[in-house]
Amino acid sequence: MPPARLPAAVGIVGLGVMGGSLARALSAMGCRVRGYSPAVDERLAASRAGALEQVCGTVAETTREVDWWIVATPLSALPEVLAAGREHAPGAVMDLASLQRPALAAARAAGLARVYVSAHPMAGSERSGFGASDGALFHGATVWLSADPEVPETLRAEAEAFWFGVGAHPRWIEAATHDTRMAAISHLPQLVSNALALVLEARGFHPDELGPGGRELTRLAGSAPGLWRDVLAHSAADVTLLLQESAEVLLRLAAHLEAQDLDAVEAVMASTRAWRRS
Amino acid sequence: MPPARLPAAVGIVGLGVMGGSLARALSAMGCRVRGYSPAVDERLAASRAGALEQVCGTVAETTREVDWWIVATPLSALPEVLAAGREHAPGAVMDLASLQRPALAAARAAGLARVYVSAHPMAGSERSGFGASDGALFHGATVWLSADPEVPETLRAEAEAFWFGVGAHPRWIEAATHDTRMAAISHLPQLVSNALALVLEARGFHPDELGPGGRELTRLAGSAPGLWRDVLAHSAADVTLLLQESAEVLLRLAAHLEAQDLDAVEAVMASTRAWRRS
Repeated sequence: MPPARLPAAVGIVGLGVMGGSLARALSAMGCRVRGYSPAVDERLAASRAGALEQVCGTVAETTREVDWWIVATPLSALPEVLAAGREHAPGAVMDLASLQRPALAAARAAGLARVYVSAHPMAGSERSGFGASDGALFHGATVWLSADPEVPETLRAEAEAFWFGVGAHPRWIEAATHDTRMAAISHLPQLVSNALALVLEARGFHPDELGPGGRELTRLAGSAPGLWRDVLAHSAADVTLLLQESAEVLLRLAAHLEAQDLDAVEAVMASTRAWRRS
Repeated sequence: MPPARLPAAVGIVGLGVMGGSLARALSAMGCRVRGYSPAVDERLAASRAGALEQVCGTVAETTREVDWWIVATPLSALPEVLAAGREHAPGAVMDLASLQRPALAAARAAGLARVYVSAHPMAGSERSGFGASDGALFHGATVWLSADPEVPETLRAEAEAFWFGVGAHPRWIEAATHDTRMAAISHLPQLVSNALALVLEARGFHPDELGPGGRELTRLAGSAPGLWRDVLAHSAADVTLLLQESAEVLLRLAAHLEAQDLDAVEAVMASTRAWRRS
């Protein structure tokens, strides 16, 4: 059994899908959760849902008397939020950002690097806001953790125990490695879904007309553009190459079909089938 | 309430995902089902699962004393199977093929056009064989029906009632229209999934490393290549154009990212989000 140990009190800034789901999970397990969102209705919704013990009116309030301070905002808001809370930040700070190099850079800029862990749960929703949060969101999910080399082993162990506590599987990774991998396994699938949806939309199809496969492949096309804008601004170089590679594969498949070279198409499909089943 | 009326006896050739699921559904509702598959183990599996009242040793046997004769084989086997059974075929014959123009052409060639309905359920599995069949597969699924103009209204009504009977939503369509639409809403998503999987495989990722979105977008990449080869051979012209359009969209997104034109990327994502939610 991995060591699962929940903190007694946590402060969370940002009550969308990620922060809201964490607030629900922690509150349900008896942790005292303080929470703040710049959107008043999100704060009230979280409070009404029993996800918060204390609704805060400012970022700074969420840092008071907590063991962990969690910043669950879009990546672009991270520097500002860390600056607003750093003065009274506790000895353990965590973000839930999708990219870890810019997150750790923000922590360094705020003077928090030594108490800071960047945590990226491989879970989410194409919907947004507290209304899409789910106390079971992190069950069974891999959570990538990275931190500055100067972060002590005790804090790293606390971060692991935290995520084991909400049912997730924490794993350490180097921030730059994490970000390059995410461009391929997360950002690329997102944009492929957008591209497919755009083609179907341009042809005049309605989502209701799709079969199960088409619906599945365009689900992510419903994701929140603003959050992705933030992320893609930082991973543009990696994602550009991956999009070009994907376009090349599509054009190669088109050329095979145009030439009625079904052997070549079948070989591609056999290869990906073996990969999926590996 | 739509008129749901199951036949008393049905003969099914092909006991894979589609034929096997139909055999399960019909048997569970008290219909007598005769079944044949060229694979002996599939026949035995279907019989052991209670999906068949009678295991047949030839195609011709499945046509005996049944109200509907269902041919649930890959598209390329359809002409041969129809030829093998046409002599004793009952007055109602149906296939479950993914493309309806070549299916109706095969029915005409076999002299069965006047008793023939082509039925394409928008349901399936990336797995194959009787082991992947599911008696509830057709619940709530749209089933596209097409037939030659000379098919009488009474038979059309019987075909509708059949599909209502297994919980599906039958809808009539012109065969050529059906096939063009399927190229976009079914064949294109399939190949986009293969292309994404190929890129991730080439980069050395394992499917287990993907998040929920990446797993979802590559699920179809596990589909059976042989079945798709059949289908794509007939829809190559439509699919070629769609693949080229999709590649263009990916290259356009890549160009936006390379130029750090996040406004343009966000505009695409906002458009597809609105479409998905429409």
